[in-house]
Amino acid sequence: MDVKIPETWSEEKLQDYITREKETSQKWQKSGKWKYLWRVAGKYSNISVIEAESPDELHQIISSLPLFPYMNIKVTSVCKHPNAIRETML
Amino acid sequence: MDVKIPETWSEEKLQDYITREKETSQKWQKSGKWKYLWRVAGKYSNISVIEAESPDELHQIISSLPLFPYMNIKVTSVCKHPNAIRETML
Amino acid sequence: MDVKIPETWSEEKLQDYITREKETSQKWQKSGKWKYLWRVAGKYSNISVIEAESPDELHQIISSLPLFPYMNIKVTSVCKHPNAIRETML
Amino acid sequence: MDVKIPETWSEEKLQDYITREKETSQKWQKSGKWKYLWRVAGKYSNISVIEAESPDELHQIISSLPLFPYMNIKVTSVCKHPNAIRETML
Amino acid sequence: MDVKIPETWSEEKLQDYITREKETSQKWQKSGKWKYLWRVAGKYSNISVIEAESPDELHQIISSLPLFPYMNIKVTSVCKHPNAIRETML
Amino acid sequence: MDVKIPETWSEEKLQDYITREKETSQKWQKSGKWKYLWRVAGKYSNISVIEAESPDELHQIISSLPLFPYMNIKVTSVCKHPNAIRETML
Amino acid sequence: MDVKIPETWSEEKLQDYITREKETSQKWQKSGKWKYLWRVAGKYSNISVIEAESPDELHQIISSLPLFPYMNIKVTSVCKHPNAIRETML
Amino acid sequence: MDVKIPETWSEEKLQDYITREKETSQKWQKSGKWKYLWRVAGKYSNISVIEAESPDELHQIISSLPLFPYMNIKVTSVCKHPNAIRETML
Amino acid sequence: MDVKIPETWSEEKLQDYITREKETSQKWQKSGKWKYLWRVAGKYSNISVIEAESPDELHQIISSLPLFPYMNIKVTSVCKHPNAIRETML
Amino acid sequence: MDVKIPETWSEEKLQDYITREKETSQKWQKSGKWKYLWRVAGKYSNISVIEAESPDELHQIISSLPLFPYMNIKVTSVCKHPNAIRETML
Repeated sequence: MDVKIPETWSEEKLQDYITREKETSQKWQKSGKWKYLWRVAGKYSNISVIEAESPDELHQIISSLPLFPYMNIKVTSVCKHPNAIRETML
Repeated sequence: MDVKIPETWSEEKLQDYITREKETSQKWQKSGKWKYLWRVAGKYSNISVIEAESPDELHQIISSLPLFPYMNIKVTSVCKHPNAIRETML
Repeated sequence: MDVKIPETWSEEKLQDYITREKETSQKWQKSGKWKYLWRVAGKYSNISVIEAESPDELHQIISSLPLFPYMNIKVTSVCKHPNAIRETML
Repeated sequence: MDVKIPETWSEEKLQDYITREKETSQKWQKSGKWKYLWRVAGKYSNISVIEAESPDELHQIISSLPLFPYMNIKVTSVCKHPNAIRETML
Repeated sequence: MDVKIPETWSEEKLQDYITREKETSQKWQKSGKWKYLWRVAGKYSNISVIEAESPDELHQIISSLPLFPYMNIKVTSVCKHPNAIRETML
Repeated sequence: MDVKIPETWSEEKLQDYITREKETSQKWQKSGKWKYLWRVAGKYSNISVIEAESPDELHQIISSLPLFPYMNIKVTSVCKHPNAIRETML
Repeated sequence: MDVKIPETWSEEKLQDYITREKETSQKWQKSGKWKYLWRVAGKYSNISVIEAESPDELHQIISSLPLFPYMNIKVTSVCKHPNAIRETML
Repeated sequence: MDVKIPETWSEEKLQDYITREKETSQKWQKSGKWKYLWRVAGKYSNISVIEAESPDELHQIISSLPLFPYMNIKVTSVCKHPNAIRETML
Repeated sequence: MDVKIPETWSEEKLQDYITREKETSQKWQKSGKWKYLWRVAGKYSNISVIEAESPDELHQIISSLPLFPYMNIKVTSVCKHPNAIRETML
Repeated sequence: MDVKIPETWSEEKLQDYITREKETSQKWQKSGKWKYLWRVAGKYSNISVIEAESPDELHQIISSLPLFPYMNIKVTSVCKHPNAIRETML
């Protein structure tokens, strides 16, 4: 998820979005569905691992983020790798 | 890591590489440095999370894979995200 | 069809467009020409299957959407596949 | 799925692969999981709609195709669109 | 030629440009230099065949269009194909 | 259509393909369906205008070319442009 | 150098920039360092050949153009070709 | 790091950012972590070599730049090359 | 023009091609039509300025090069720039 | 510089090239012209800083590498940055 804030936003509007973004993101992390959240070093981007039950649920999670309309998002479906040694994937 | 096997390889050569690739990958997973290994659904590719102490160690791990010369690899450095709720990153 | 809403739109203008977009899209679905409409998971995009009688009719359908000027659209012509088992394509 | 046949293949080898590709593809179509299969007009490519229960099953279906190692594949997860009028997605 | 209208334009300004664009385009068509003009189905784009005497004249024709500053244009020089059966190219 | 001849072909094989390519291309031109055929200046490529009754027919025409497996092809559907002054499109 | 004028500029501002752009460009041409300046046919772009003594001087020349902040620029270093027949390169 | 200044900025705002950008950049250079800083000839871009102890520190350095929100940044991790003759990398 | 020599060529075959390439290139330079020929620094590529009377002649010149089938070529039509100070373009 | 070794090479041929590549690279490093040489972590690529007196010398250095024909190379000219604190650039 690459975030691109519109240049016209005031500092207040930006902080309001950032606060709500954090709340929404942490709600999904606490639910156990948003497994990992990393900052891409040197960019206003993150790489996340989300374990959703269906593409519908994945869309529900991602589109609930307040900054969703200002993100460029790339989704990749992953599954178990034959060489992985763990019982569970995550 | 996208894998592209040369068309000229025999089935024996391919199996030998796959066996050794599995051994090398699992050795690094057991060491605790190769944290996650996922298959990209529908592709001969994987997405991995590797926790190396330096770019040198990262290169040592990836280039030790027998299929390294036949892979197209994209590396992204990640760090802790301010919205992440876990104490440890992984 | 990737949708990109201008940042300057008010919430009212956006809702008005979304309502009219839905009406137009459903009119074409009911006509039987717009066969399938899927949301791309995690993006403000859709993938659609439209059965038009000609490129002219295809253009008429797509350009009738209120959000047409704000979409980035990729069109691919498909035909019957020799391995398909169905009599009809859709 | 874009197919790229190696130039070194004999006509017999090609026909053998095409025959087995057709069998595998039709087996999955008959199972009800491979919903649609279209030829991209003017290219040796297809666009398919597959309804799998998980990314693991999707990978099992696609990687079972004999021509899988010779394909360039792009996977997009889709879900229900709020404007779609059908009860079922397919 | 892909056209991208600025979001800030009023409906009047847009109509004025469209009217003048049509007049200029048709003037060049009537001159015999702008041979073909097709709409790309599903996009606000056109594909045109222009027979100019030099790159200077080509630039004069294209840059005379009122919407020229709002177009993304790709130019390809074509010549007679050895397999073509027509005496003249157009 | 960009043509890429395999490096391993003999001069005889190449000439045979070129001859048959010409025959097939001219057969479709004489049928009236392959309207225009231009060489892209400076490249082993052509730009063609084909008037097919359906995507199926378009695929039949293009895939009948002997060099079809060695081409990289881009297809764009076009329709009548509102500014075009001709009664017929071609 | 591709030029992209902001949509918000008035006609006066644009003309002022174009006038100063011309003066600066011609100053460098007269100095003998800006060897060639061609318009790309059909685009608001130019291709230039500049003979600078160092990358620093090249940057000084290009960044002195008033429209520099509104250009997308691609720089390619060239040198003498072994097949060139001229004593001097330009 | 490619810099893209918003067109709406006043000259004062721009100068203020440039001054603070210089201060921040030089603070990191003096700390010894920002090893090299080069201007890309002919572009408003730089190429930098930063020696950080971790991806977290790298992100701290880059994101502290006032122009960070207006940059397009590409990060590449490098390590010692087996052919390098120097004891230290920098 | 980017040149890509097949890996299977012998040194003799390569030298033969290079010799004939040089002869053909210099023949066109001496004719006055191939105005400039530069090596792209650090690549097996050249940038050339060719003054042809038509796209047909341009294609005749480029396709006469023995290495033409092994080149990736990009053609850009240029014309006189309004800011250019020279009477002639070259 | 991205290196792509042909699949058909024997281990002996590869080792011979690697040995000569190392010798040539170190010769230029000792000359003081090849300032820095880094391995891109996780790839068979390097990023180098070369201080040449002209594009001709740069091409002489890069093209002297035995693996030059098997590399994909991107060259960027850099110069002094106004924010740099060092007297010398390197």
